[in-house]
Amino acid sequence: MTIQLYCFGESGNAYKAALTMTLAGVAWTPVFVDFFNGGTRTPAFRSLNVMGEVPVMVDGDLVISQSAVIQDYITSKTSKLGGRSADQRREILRWMFFDNHKVSGVAGTLRFNTNFLPEDKRNADVNAFLLMRLKSALKVMEVHLTGRDWLAGDALTVADIACCGYLFYTEPFGFDRAEFPHVDAWLDRIAATPGWAHPYDLMPRALPAA
Amino acid sequence: MTIQLYCFGESGNAYKAALTMTLAGVAWTPVFVDFFNGGTRTPAFRSLNVMGEVPVMVDGDLVISQSAVIQDYITSKTSKLGGRSADQRREILRWMFFDNHKVSGVAGTLRFNTNFLPEDKRNADVNAFLLMRLKSALKVMEVHLTGRDWLAGDALTVADIACCGYLFYTEPFGFDRAEFPHVDAWLDRIAATPGWAHPYDLMPRALPAA
Repeated sequence: MTIQLYCFGESGNAYKAALTMTLAGVAWTPVFVDFFNGGTRTPAFRSLNVMGEVPVMVDGDLVISQSAVIQDYITSKTSKLGGRSADQRREILRWMFFDNHKVSGVAGTLRFNTNFLPEDKRNADVNAFLLMRLKSALKVMEVHLTGRDWLAGDALTVADIACCGYLFYTEPFGFDRAEFPHVDAWLDRIAATPGWAHPYDLMPRALPAA
Repeated sequence: MTIQLYCFGESGNAYKAALTMTLAGVAWTPVFVDFFNGGTRTPAFRSLNVMGEVPVMVDGDLVISQSAVIQDYITSKTSKLGGRSADQRREILRWMFFDNHKVSGVAGTLRFNTNFLPEDKRNADVNAFLLMRLKSALKVMEVHLTGRDWLAGDALTVADIACCGYLFYTEPFGFDRAEFPHVDAWLDRIAATPGWAHPYDLMPRALPAA
């Protein structure tokens, strides 16, 4: 049976799982979650994932949440986009944790606050704080990508697909590619990978295009 | 040679690595990092870890950063505190990502802002936002721990040691154990594990006790 991915287009975390499956050549189909109307808060969804988050992947009897765990599962299943040695696997995992903690963990929240929260709930101090944190993480990536093409090893891996999760969206949230030229070039390399697609072309959007 | 852990007592992320090694029976020694005086910003430290964070573990020629990757390495090395099947390992990893993203990723920042930032740099709106996010993650743990003793499987694993990383500190940051009775009982179970120690008893403190 085809793998199902509970997702919506605005979720960069879901995008990581969707793009990993797509680039690994795994057949999958999206199951739309109506996030902005409480789709992750229903008892049915919570029984699928107590964490109340997309993505959730269903492969037969197997149910996995957390984008990075889905990504890791796909590399194990296909032997693609992962590491070939214990050292490589750890280096990939290291960037995936950095991503969840410092990159996507902040970018996702900041992008939500900036674009999807009702205007009267937006807080300039909170968003300035998050942007400072995000830029600090992007600076680490900028330094690391100086003189190298990919975050971990010498080929595209799930580490790259994790860290770019929120960086292809064009809704403004303070991230300016021109400020981070090595990150910018790395995003171009990812987008040039055969089969690459933008999140809105892989998953159904919850909100209409602006 | 004994494993070295670059750390300081106030870092809950370093604590996860320190406690994992301690409970797995691995010999290790702390290398103090003077975080509050720029110890993670020096060129020497950045060449050890481009991410500029503790913990960093050195085991002979092997250098690993990111607490969760160190934890994963220790479970592989010792066959302790980890999973016994692919399913169990994924469930553990799932909670470790949830921790890095939603629990420690927020608690660490909030605790820093509340206790260690100069008073004129503290921002009530930012801290209220972070506390709302933290309570939302703790609520997920509270639901999940209802009727079960450990986060993943039926024994203490590195998933528990990750999620508790910041929760034993007594400096106030808005986390009240009484508000989350199942989390409270789970913390008691962790603390009752033979060999358990508080972060300040495992690692040298950067700041004097209040």
